[in-house]
Amino acid sequence: MRQPIVTLTTDFGLADHFVAAMKGVILSIEPRASIVDLSHEIAPYSIPEAAFTLSQAYAWFPSKTIHVVVVDPGVGTARRPILAQAAGQYFVAPDNGVLSLVYAREKHRVRAITAVRYFRHPVSRTFHGRDVFAPVAAHMAHGVAPARFGKLITDYATGEFQRPTPSGAQNWTGLVLKVDRFGNLITNFAVAEFPALETGAFLLRIGRRRVTTCAHSYAQGSPRQLFVIAASSGYFEIAANQASAARLTGCGTGAAIELTAPV
Amino acid sequence: MRQPIVTLTTDFGLADHFVAAMKGVILSIEPRASIVDLSHEIAPYSIPEAAFTLSQAYAWFPSKTIHVVVVDPGVGTARRPILAQAAGQYFVAPDNGVLSLVYAREKHRVRAITAVRYFRHPVSRTFHGRDVFAPVAAHMAHGVAPARFGKLITDYATGEFQRPTPSGAQNWTGLVLKVDRFGNLITNFAVAEFPALETGAFLLRIGRRRVTTCAHSYAQGSPRQLFVIAASSGYFEIAANQASAARLTGCGTGAAIELTAPV
Amino acid sequence: MRQPIVTLTTDFGLADHFVAAMKGVILSIEPRASIVDLSHEIAPYSIPEAAFTLSQAYAWFPSKTIHVVVVDPGVGTARRPILAQAAGQYFVAPDNGVLSLVYAREKHRVRAITAVRYFRHPVSRTFHGRDVFAPVAAHMAHGVAPARFGKLITDYATGEFQRPTPSGAQNWTGLVLKVDRFGNLITNFAVAEFPALETGAFLLRIGRRRVTTCAHSYAQGSPRQLFVIAASSGYFEIAANQASAARLTGCGTGAAIELTAPV
Repeated sequence: MRQPIVTLTTDFGLADHFVAAMKGVILSIEPRASIVDLSHEIAPYSIPEAAFTLSQAYAWFPSKTIHVVVVDPGVGTARRPILAQAAGQYFVAPDNGVLSLVYAREKHRVRAITAVRYFRHPVSRTFHGRDVFAPVAAHMAHGVAPARFGKLITDYATGEFQRPTPSGAQNWTGLVLKVDRFGNLITNFAVAEFPALETGAFLLRIGRRRVTTCAHSYAQGSPRQLFVIAASSGYFEIAANQASAARLTGCGTGAAIELTAPV
Repeated sequence: MRQPIVTLTTDFGLADHFVAAMKGVILSIEPRASIVDLSHEIAPYSIPEAAFTLSQAYAWFPSKTIHVVVVDPGVGTARRPILAQAAGQYFVAPDNGVLSLVYAREKHRVRAITAVRYFRHPVSRTFHGRDVFAPVAAHMAHGVAPARFGKLITDYATGEFQRPTPSGAQNWTGLVLKVDRFGNLITNFAVAEFPALETGAFLLRIGRRRVTTCAHSYAQGSPRQLFVIAASSGYFEIAANQASAARLTGCGTGAAIELTAPV
Repeated sequence: MRQPIVTLTTDFGLADHFVAAMKGVILSIEPRASIVDLSHEIAPYSIPEAAFTLSQAYAWFPSKTIHVVVVDPGVGTARRPILAQAAGQYFVAPDNGVLSLVYAREKHRVRAITAVRYFRHPVSRTFHGRDVFAPVAAHMAHGVAPARFGKLITDYATGEFQRPTPSGAQNWTGLVLKVDRFGNLITNFAVAEFPALETGAFLLRIGRRRVTTCAHSYAQGSPRQLFVIAASSGYFEIAANQASAARLTGCGTGAAIELTAPV
């Protein structure tokens, strides 16, 4: 039987003991689990950033992978733990909208996790990553069927993830979804929805800068010349050759973008 | 046979080659080892922080896990490498007090590691993580019995880890053990020893701030309102709803705390 | 059969989804792969730093380990992906000189990877880590022979990695290769080539500081006293007892070093 894969996405960072405690709990229940860090550097409490990062990675994993997401500002409150099935994979997370981008793309079924016998007891009020989400994922990895964890629900939380809005005949207002390590600005203009940016004339304004060219690789132009590029994320990015577009524009996550382009 | 688990706790960070070199050495001796990063972001040379982080994580791992701790300002001096057995697990570390919190909680036996045949040769004077601790752990993972590494000793180093001290009839002076990624201040007031904080009236002073409420979850109160909370660490933390208590108080690791409370 | 080992060295950092996407691709093709992070904190675009970090770690891994290096400012341009065999191991990387220190030390054979059937399609123009290097490494881990990926070449790129240059009868000009997490300055004076530093009189100048002593362990001297030490890297480092030599000298990567010493 194949080694079960469990991925972890949290805002815990790697300095503290939190992630290691979760891994210890998982390995104590299912020693064969192969645990992959998806990211632990989600900005504290940022459900949109966790949703985006997960959405860029889950599809590359094998079927039956169990993705655990613990960005959970409501830990210890009445928010439910949930188990979603989508794209042949499993998602264990708090019911706070962090799976919204999975829901938007994939057929899915969602269960409220109520079978407390799969939790670690006593359950702390502050660390459900260790006491709820890790043991549930480990029991799944060990072979417990999804239906054993709780019943299907339809009233799960879904977040509002911002899409560009029309602001004129050929105008849209968008924003920066995320800044990556290179300072590239990942926009919410999807490549599939704005094909004109790759081929036609356009004007994109961000901060005090104007961008009018679309590059085919990051290695084009001078280090001060901004361009857009159809990126591997499925979104257009604003970037520059070996330079940080975030620094060049002075803009970061959430910054407004004005686009004028033919559709 | 189950895959042997080796955890690593160091102050090496993740940018340099140090951790990877240790993993390569381990996998060369025992390719089946499952290596788990406990933390590599211990503050450089901080034995107390390494002791605390280890103490919060080791208990969650399966029996026979081998925990390697390399926070080792004395590398290359006469300080001994040791192998401790406690709680059904193994601990490989320099004899500098970094295992003190394990000793304080668990029955334990400690050996001085003298069997140089299990080291990688030549042994450098600057990187015993690679040349001493990693190969010893790997040979243990491969099945070498603890007694083969050296004799039991009783004069191993133990650190002074500060506990609250009484400073009046109902007064104690404590301190901040650690600041976590969220800015929560982990105090040295153990939940089991100060039950009054959860139920009774108390006054806690830190920096210029006063704290008089105990919350049941991090999601209580406004972002500027400090509270204490009985945390998953077993200690009270000073925290605020989606805000950094470290920033709100201007305090960090080692900061003094004055507590007035009935016992 | 032994679990195949794949190491990853990138400048992607650990916050974004890039590394996880690569791991998902690898595990989808070869679920048995044991993936080890060598480092993901290479300075963005820094081919010399990636080359140095790889050179300090690869030799400790078992034979047949597959090392993937993705520091790739030329992604999407005509630069080739290559597969090198050296020291009984495999190296998958862009042909931009990042393997130069492996070439310099080991007998090696290099192939241009042209067998696009082993890529993930469609191949993006911006993320060959996910679409080219990860799947090629995974297919190798799965047992595909090196010759299947492309033909041997001899015109692969090699970088100029700076060695000390003579600047007088007993004088050399060197530089700082890298600053590690402790602030130790790793110089390009190899221990094997400058034995006089360990035994004889010498004068080393860096910034406004003069260094004239060679220590046998990091724990010598006062925290303000700089020394050189023959380090585990094979190079002399400039260091101080539990203090940052980078801070004490005000110098970092690339800083000039003047050495006067008998040969």
